[in-house]
Amino acid sequence: MKKTFVNKEKLEAIVKQYPTPFHLYDEKGIRENVRNLQEAFSWNKGYKEYFAVKATPNPTILQILKEEGCGVDCSSYTELMMSDTVGFAGEDIMFTSNVTPREDFVLARKLNALITLDDITHIDFLEEVAGLPETISCRFNPGGDFVIDNAIMDTPQVAKYGFTREQMSEGFAILKDKGVKHFGIHAFLASNTIANEYYPALARILFQTAVELNQETGAHIAFINLSGGVGIPYLPDQQPTDIYEVGRGVQKAFEEILVPAGMGDIAIYTELGRFVLGPFGHLITTALHEKHTHKEYIGLDACAANLMRPAMYGAYHHITVMGKEDAPLDHVYDVTGGLCENNDKFAIDRKLPKIDIGDLVVLHDTGAHGFAMGYNYNGKLRSAEVLLKEDGSTELIRRAETPADYFATLDFSKWKK
Amino acid sequence: MKKTFVNKEKLEAIVKQYPTPFHLYDEKGIRENVRNLQEAFSWNKGYKEYFAVKATPNPTILQILKEEGCGVDCSSYTELMMSDTVGFAGEDIMFTSNVTPREDFVLARKLNALITLDDITHIDFLEEVAGLPETISCRFNPGGDFVIDNAIMDTPQVAKYGFTREQMSEGFAILKDKGVKHFGIHAFLASNTIANEYYPALARILFQTAVELNQETGAHIAFINLSGGVGIPYLPDQQPTDIYEVGRGVQKAFEEILVPAGMGDIAIYTELGRFVLGPFGHLITTALHEKHTHKEYIGLDACAANLMRPAMYGAYHHITVMGKEDAPLDHVYDVTGGLCENNDKFAIDRKLPKIDIGDLVVLHDTGAHGFAMGYNYNGKLRSAEVLLKEDGSTELIRRAETPADYFATLDFSKWKK
Repeated sequence: MKKTFVNKEKLEAIVKQYPTPFHLYDEKGIRENVRNLQEAFSWNKGYKEYFAVKATPNPTILQILKEEGCGVDCSSYTELMMSDTVGFAGEDIMFTSNVTPREDFVLARKLNALITLDDITHIDFLEEVAGLPETISCRFNPGGDFVIDNAIMDTPQVAKYGFTREQMSEGFAILKDKGVKHFGIHAFLASNTIANEYYPALARILFQTAVELNQETGAHIAFINLSGGVGIPYLPDQQPTDIYEVGRGVQKAFEEILVPAGMGDIAIYTELGRFVLGPFGHLITTALHEKHTHKEYIGLDACAANLMRPAMYGAYHHITVMGKEDAPLDHVYDVTGGLCENNDKFAIDRKLPKIDIGDLVVLHDTGAHGFAMGYNYNGKLRSAEVLLKEDGSTELIRRAETPADYFATLDFSKWKK
Repeated sequence: MKKTFVNKEKLEAIVKQYPTPFHLYDEKGIRENVRNLQEAFSWNKGYKEYFAVKATPNPTILQILKEEGCGVDCSSYTELMMSDTVGFAGEDIMFTSNVTPREDFVLARKLNALITLDDITHIDFLEEVAGLPETISCRFNPGGDFVIDNAIMDTPQVAKYGFTREQMSEGFAILKDKGVKHFGIHAFLASNTIANEYYPALARILFQTAVELNQETGAHIAFINLSGGVGIPYLPDQQPTDIYEVGRGVQKAFEEILVPAGMGDIAIYTELGRFVLGPFGHLITTALHEKHTHKEYIGLDACAANLMRPAMYGAYHHITVMGKEDAPLDHVYDVTGGLCENNDKFAIDRKLPKIDIGDLVVLHDTGAHGFAMGYNYNGKLRSAEVLLKEDGSTELIRRAETPADYFATLDFSKWKK
């Protein structure tokens, strides 16, 4: 059974200070989890987690992860800016993007970030706009289906990212020729996989590719970036990833493939967002309306503007009604937001305890790709973010939007004369 | 064949002033189209189009529609604020929302807006928070499937909106008892239908319901709100709605049902967003990268942050490569944005002319639910909106976001000491 990281009494105190809806993050959980991740990969002396900023682009979250020794994985200009401001620099910043604008590469180079090239054409583009660095990484897309134990995990063949295998050889040769000294290899082959076998299977592909590329081109492979893809159990009956088993699986592949090839000095990097932050965020809402028509509805004061995953992906987010954790699940509700958009449903036909107006309703696992995917459709405002600190106190780490924010890019002077 | 409302020469001049990507709107097209709509319903003396602000929440667009005699359909607090600022007042504002927050009803009442109640429980809620007005509308949801000529158009049974038929009777009786004098009936049963039969079929249901409710409760039905749902041809082989035929179809139902019942004074209202604005917006982009891997890709300088419909709904938006309107469609591309999200594809396996880097690539039919659905995922910034005026000049009607906008709700003072 999924449990909230805050109890009813505590949450009632918090909502007195911060009106719902807001995202609440659990500092203690974040720190413990990332320490486990690092411990699981501690066999690799160069290991580093580059937190995927896109998952939770908040400077206080980045600061916590910085204190834990993480780097950042940035995908855009503003993510680079935020990371720079928080104090990440040089090789603590990984810049992994696609369809990359000129100014993004310029800023990444200015910050001496590690750059992951998404495409072979970006070699010339980067060289032209900002010059090539001494160390560079290329994103590999093997195509086809990505299969583990006969199960198709995902289909890299139709993913827009990366170099083909042939382009990896060609690209490394070109880059080496242009003076690049150290290389990384990156791949992302499946999203949100809770199978412990994902990273080890991916690692085997990349390690083998590294050995081949080293033999073919003589390139010095400095690191292998397993990227993201390690998932979290959104559903209550899913088993969480065992990150220690994942680490051991990658280690086994490392020792079987890289060590015998004399490449045991390669550093392993990860770019986890969901795994690192997902479970440690809750969207805290209040039940605003109940509705009894052709179905039973509960309307919350949050909507897809605060959490888009159910609307966009049909994603499951577990719901806890505070104070009714042990009550029988004897009602079936659609739990909705107030957008004029029928996909604005946090849950459809969900078995829940009876919900009363005013109940605190917690949506689980909103720590990653939650606030980050918010929009302003229907003129709805994005919510605050609050940190539940290790000592039990809270800190407002992002204020809620106001109408003035919503109108900021408009000029009303014509109408206000 | 779909054509852009601006030619290459003109567009090249415009992009010199406004860097891509941006949304461009065609004032001439907007005005002509809304005049056709009004003409098609001119047989009804009270007819009024309440433009659905959520489709294109821009004050200059609202101003144009105001000049054409339209009202506004608002779904939220900020939409009410914007409409008020532009000068809409009283019965020129329709407030149609769901899961309505207290403060939204308070503002709607303060502006003397017409209110559409989404649920029977909102009668007491509105009365408590802001008092009941003399005129009020109730949203009807007949449940089941909505069928025209044996084809299921949509499934109101699972839509979160509206009163059941029984609740309509009960609600009207309660409201009448509480002193409400004039009533409206609202329904939205299918989204983006280009079938000319949609509005007439909906009208028959609502007209019949109006007659019944009048007979049952003695309520004076002042207007019937056909709401939105009239669509546009996103696909090049789709026939556009013939709004005159739609108007005649509604008129026929009106004369067959309402006039004989002595209810020929009922006003017809519409809340069209997509039909009124959709075709008159283009997302103007530049081809930034080409990529030849397992598929052929063209990367644009726009992404789902600027137009989410393809990512969220798999929606088709036609693409014109400027200057290559008549070139053979001898390439097959995925046309992508730069989000680290594989659904960020404006087109998949689309037959297009050869696209070169730097080409101006126009995405059609972005006038409604285009900019409005933008988000900031991956730290991407939302674009400007530009109006192509009737005299051929242009006006910046929304500036592009800057990093400062993106960071506005964050406090970096801790890191900037």
